[in-house]
Amino acid sequence: MIIIMKLGASKQNIDNVLGIIRTNGLEPHLSDGKEVTIIGVIGDKTRLMNQNLEIVDGVERIVSVTESYKLANKKFHPEKTVVKVGNTSIGGDEFTIMSGPCAVESEKQVLETAQAIKKCGAQILRGGAYKPRTSPYSFQGLEEDGLRLMKAAREATGLAIVCEVTSLAAIGTAVKYVDMLQIGARNMQNFYLLKEAGKTGLPVLLKRGLSATIDEWLNAAEYIMSEGNQNVVLCERGIRTFETATRNTLDISAIPVIRTKSHLPVIVDPSHATGVRDYVAPLAKCAVAAGADGLMIETHPCPEKALSDGPQSLTFAQFDTLCNELRPYIALSGKKF
Amino acid sequence: MIIIMKLGASKQNIDNVLGIIRTNGLEPHLSDGKEVTIIGVIGDKTRLMNQNLEIVDGVERIVSVTESYKLANKKFHPEKTVVKVGNTSIGGDEFTIMSGPCAVESEKQVLETAQAIKKCGAQILRGGAYKPRTSPYSFQGLEEDGLRLMKAAREATGLAIVCEVTSLAAIGTAVKYVDMLQIGARNMQNFYLLKEAGKTGLPVLLKRGLSATIDEWLNAAEYIMSEGNQNVVLCERGIRTFETATRNTLDISAIPVIRTKSHLPVIVDPSHATGVRDYVAPLAKCAVAAGADGLMIETHPCPEKALSDGPQSLTFAQFDTLCNELRPYIALSGKKF
Amino acid sequence: MIIIMKLGASKQNIDNVLGIIRTNGLEPHLSDGKEVTIIGVIGDKTRLMNQNLEIVDGVERIVSVTESYKLANKKFHPEKTVVKVGNTSIGGDEFTIMSGPCAVESEKQVLETAQAIKKCGAQILRGGAYKPRTSPYSFQGLEEDGLRLMKAAREATGLAIVCEVTSLAAIGTAVKYVDMLQIGARNMQNFYLLKEAGKTGLPVLLKRGLSATIDEWLNAAEYIMSEGNQNVVLCERGIRTFETATRNTLDISAIPVIRTKSHLPVIVDPSHATGVRDYVAPLAKCAVAAGADGLMIETHPCPEKALSDGPQSLTFAQFDTLCNELRPYIALSGKKF
Amino acid sequence: MIIIMKLGASKQNIDNVLGIIRTNGLEPHLSDGKEVTIIGVIGDKTRLMNQNLEIVDGVERIVSVTESYKLANKKFHPEKTVVKVGNTSIGGDEFTIMSGPCAVESEKQVLETAQAIKKCGAQILRGGAYKPRTSPYSFQGLEEDGLRLMKAAREATGLAIVCEVTSLAAIGTAVKYVDMLQIGARNMQNFYLLKEAGKTGLPVLLKRGLSATIDEWLNAAEYIMSEGNQNVVLCERGIRTFETATRNTLDISAIPVIRTKSHLPVIVDPSHATGVRDYVAPLAKCAVAAGADGLMIETHPCPEKALSDGPQSLTFAQFDTLCNELRPYIALSGKKF
Repeated sequence: MIIIMKLGASKQNIDNVLGIIRTNGLEPHLSDGKEVTIIGVIGDKTRLMNQNLEIVDGVERIVSVTESYKLANKKFHPEKTVVKVGNTSIGGDEFTIMSGPCAVESEKQVLETAQAIKKCGAQILRGGAYKPRTSPYSFQGLEEDGLRLMKAAREATGLAIVCEVTSLAAIGTAVKYVDMLQIGARNMQNFYLLKEAGKTGLPVLLKRGLSATIDEWLNAAEYIMSEGNQNVVLCERGIRTFETATRNTLDISAIPVIRTKSHLPVIVDPSHATGVRDYVAPLAKCAVAAGADGLMIETHPCPEKALSDGPQSLTFAQFDTLCNELRPYIALSGKKF
Repeated sequence: MIIIMKLGASKQNIDNVLGIIRTNGLEPHLSDGKEVTIIGVIGDKTRLMNQNLEIVDGVERIVSVTESYKLANKKFHPEKTVVKVGNTSIGGDEFTIMSGPCAVESEKQVLETAQAIKKCGAQILRGGAYKPRTSPYSFQGLEEDGLRLMKAAREATGLAIVCEVTSLAAIGTAVKYVDMLQIGARNMQNFYLLKEAGKTGLPVLLKRGLSATIDEWLNAAEYIMSEGNQNVVLCERGIRTFETATRNTLDISAIPVIRTKSHLPVIVDPSHATGVRDYVAPLAKCAVAAGADGLMIETHPCPEKALSDGPQSLTFAQFDTLCNELRPYIALSGKKF
Repeated sequence: MIIIMKLGASKQNIDNVLGIIRTNGLEPHLSDGKEVTIIGVIGDKTRLMNQNLEIVDGVERIVSVTESYKLANKKFHPEKTVVKVGNTSIGGDEFTIMSGPCAVESEKQVLETAQAIKKCGAQILRGGAYKPRTSPYSFQGLEEDGLRLMKAAREATGLAIVCEVTSLAAIGTAVKYVDMLQIGARNMQNFYLLKEAGKTGLPVLLKRGLSATIDEWLNAAEYIMSEGNQNVVLCERGIRTFETATRNTLDISAIPVIRTKSHLPVIVDPSHATGVRDYVAPLAKCAVAAGADGLMIETHPCPEKALSDGPQSLTFAQFDTLCNELRPYIALSGKKF
Repeated sequence: MIIIMKLGASKQNIDNVLGIIRTNGLEPHLSDGKEVTIIGVIGDKTRLMNQNLEIVDGVERIVSVTESYKLANKKFHPEKTVVKVGNTSIGGDEFTIMSGPCAVESEKQVLETAQAIKKCGAQILRGGAYKPRTSPYSFQGLEEDGLRLMKAAREATGLAIVCEVTSLAAIGTAVKYVDMLQIGARNMQNFYLLKEAGKTGLPVLLKRGLSATIDEWLNAAEYIMSEGNQNVVLCERGIRTFETATRNTLDISAIPVIRTKSHLPVIVDPSHATGVRDYVAPLAKCAVAAGADGLMIETHPCPEKALSDGPQSLTFAQFDTLCNELRPYIALSGKKF
């Protein structure tokens, strides 16, 4: 931690800050300049956590030197994490493609989709049973019935399944059916839900919040991991900016940034990032080129009739074409598919 | 709903869209121009909700004409709502000031604060018992013990109390103690929590999400109201932008915008909006001048020792000065305090 | 300047950085911790400006301690600046209201407006002769003819006049007519134009760029001031965010932030900030309450017929009402009007 | 253009709007619903440009149906534009790589860089002679001397050269030396400069402004093109968002969006988008995968000593490696390099 003193801070101000630091069992390092005085604090800064040095007389600002997340931090865990999900794993040699409808609607829809995506090589079936929708009057999901249909599709195809959970009750139900829990963008800082998901021990797909910084996202992962569950996969799905040509702005730079800061696998969801079917294919290629570990892509037997997010869903034919187009990019990235 | 056709959409494309509209029992109005064809749809657009017209051949884009929120919409409820909380009410003739610590820490802290703010004229005591914190290693709140302390302060002073809830379990506990539930910014689109808060029938203070548009915020209020609970108070607390001189950017324009779009009361939290103690007073005056129904301001007996958000908390003396400075602004705005 | 070394930076890395600092005639202060090493640099950091320490081996990041603007910085010029414009001044005891049309259209329009706003107490007439418009097919301004009309209105009423300049040629013409040059939001980082405006010695109204941080804004002022011209007035006019209910988002917190960082006067333009006539009055009151030195408000004899920005312009009657409503707020803020 | 009337607009309000439309020689189409009335306007909407229908009584809002840019619009010019620059061209079968230093510093620096990048296959040398810098105290460029050095490097290597211009004077000088003018992000809405660049007839590289929407960017291109100059190449270089892990946020979705909306070539600058050398390579691959026509990448003989933007510049060895890594991606995208 670095404390930057105000221009003209008095000797008494400086001595007071040095005193607070020493009282808390830490060692201050004073750099006393003509214009400005800097105090470096070495040691366990959590000891100063509740000292609110920002408002002590003579202090201009505090600069944090170390990240608050530890378990998700590459500095302390340099080796890349591989997360096992059903019979497949994410973050290793294999490139992972998750696909399926935004919302589970019927047995026929889910089963057809599972079979179609399996034929293309996808390893994980996605499908929402608990849908967070902007308006209370939109379709809210089939809940446990939806989970049941997902499990049936898994039994029929051998695909692993991932479903979003939005409450403790949904987690309690989902653990009976799914291979992986998904925490959606709107719940990325629902810390209560993160801890409960962590306690299940199941792998968790953690989507980035619409306005979450990468540091906040890794701190959200830390909530799950601090419950003893290291099986976290991050998913970049677009952030909110002023640009309206796409529903959100895919922050593709997040992939190399995460690689630098964390050992956790990271995948990309180009369907939610753009909200436009025609942009899914070019952005899926981008994600591979940027070094992502996988993709999440929405598909539907008949996007025109989808109860949620139809405009961004691919048909099976489009998905098949895309998977074939992705293969050489995946090979270039050093992964198998 | 308005459907804008692509330049060069064929007659068949147009007839197909007209057909879909008529099949769903609605009446299309065709405006056929040289450059572009527009189709207006009159009637209950929810009938077209799952038709995904955006991806029908020849369609360029869809423009929504009516808002999806109804109960929160001023168009259908022109009279302003007044929400009763304990012995006070928000949205009527009186200007409401809520104050107290970010987090409940001890009996002494809460009681002293309650007495101090009451003396200044504040009507509602705030205090967090369930704290959503970015890092799992920060202080997370006293939970039910904190609620108990808040209730004791209420009994001692007669102030109404408001506490944040972050889970169904927290709601279940809080209803035994508080006059008003608070849904925090990070949970603004935790739709499950919104519905559960709605079911309690207690007044709900709904903070705006960091990246929520005003329309999304009003849709979140709609979730609470659609459970039969009309007692919703909105709270602007800053949105996330590129500017880093303040923790968030107070969107003061939201006050007159909400006045135009909704009948719900709206208050402002300048403490969280800026994160800086020195900016709280000028922005509190702004809020009054913009026409807000109230303020939420953090205070602490000793901000330097606060376990959460100390740097933005006022001392009792600062709060007293501020309340006095606010009185003439409140009088100008036509309210009493 | 503070250099934060990477976790595990070698002794050789650290010695190398220390060497670079000493070679440039500066003194490093080493804080060597268990987890991280920090090096504070005391003295004139411009000596290290081209050393790019960010990419020296072992360096994690650089933290700047002092601001790059000096002339605009309150630390070095604690006394507030008052800028004289024609017969009035901005930043002193008087509250300044600038008003007039977005674009100068005709002699009648300008003269009527000047007379109307003068009657309400406004001190400065605004009016655009060089209009930066998003589309090349929109009205681009009357250029020198427009300036001539502005000058005539000034002679008829005694009001000072301010006009936007968008090129060196425009500056060359404008100096013959106006009391104050305006640099618009889109040109805030047109550094060439800033320097040329500085050279004229005329007072300059510097609008904040749509995506400019407050630090960048003050650095833009520094460009003008570094040409020997200290007569700079800042104008907050909204920043670009994700919210679309208003054209821009008025960053009202910028007023107290500027007060803390700079000695320059700062005014607010609620017309451009919102783009909506109905929101101008509440936000004008906000600006006064936040401590602004003045306001810029668009008026037009007939907003429905305005060639630019009609929807945000007030009629004379609306402007008169607003000025009367503002008086008590101005009195509370300790200014005269 | 579509006019949406307010709920409860009177018959007189509606008749008034219909009258204004007809008076301006256009034909209104009325869609009269239970909740809301919509009026479609067919024909040349520029006739209504100055009617400010937004503030006519009873009008809720106006929805624009057609884009204001015409020459840059794919709807009217479906065939892709290829821009010839020196001996190479952008937007055709060949993939274009521009490279060189942020700022021209010396003959040796420029010549060595030109030779190094040529060996790797790059076709265009970039180098700044007029540098827009946030602070007036940073290096501002060698101006005409810099252009002279660029031209010498061009003569020695046969590479085409592109230099940024920041004023009419700079354009006047640059046309004597360069093959292509660059308009930087900060000047994207310096409309005066755009028109002057258009008049030269030289190809123009138009960088996207930090907070420019894609529509505003295409309107800026329209300014250049409306002067009779169709040789415009767009360059995505990151937009400003709340995320601070990278200097800007590369909006990679802009590539497929531009492909849909315009016939102009578009390239990507990953150096400025991230500000971090380690992220340049993965984002360069992304740009190819997204379908860009080229790249602009900063290189320097010794990035540690660069006078501008050293931390994001590649060494020659790093650039060589990157070009080799890009070849298979370029081949997949159907281009040659």
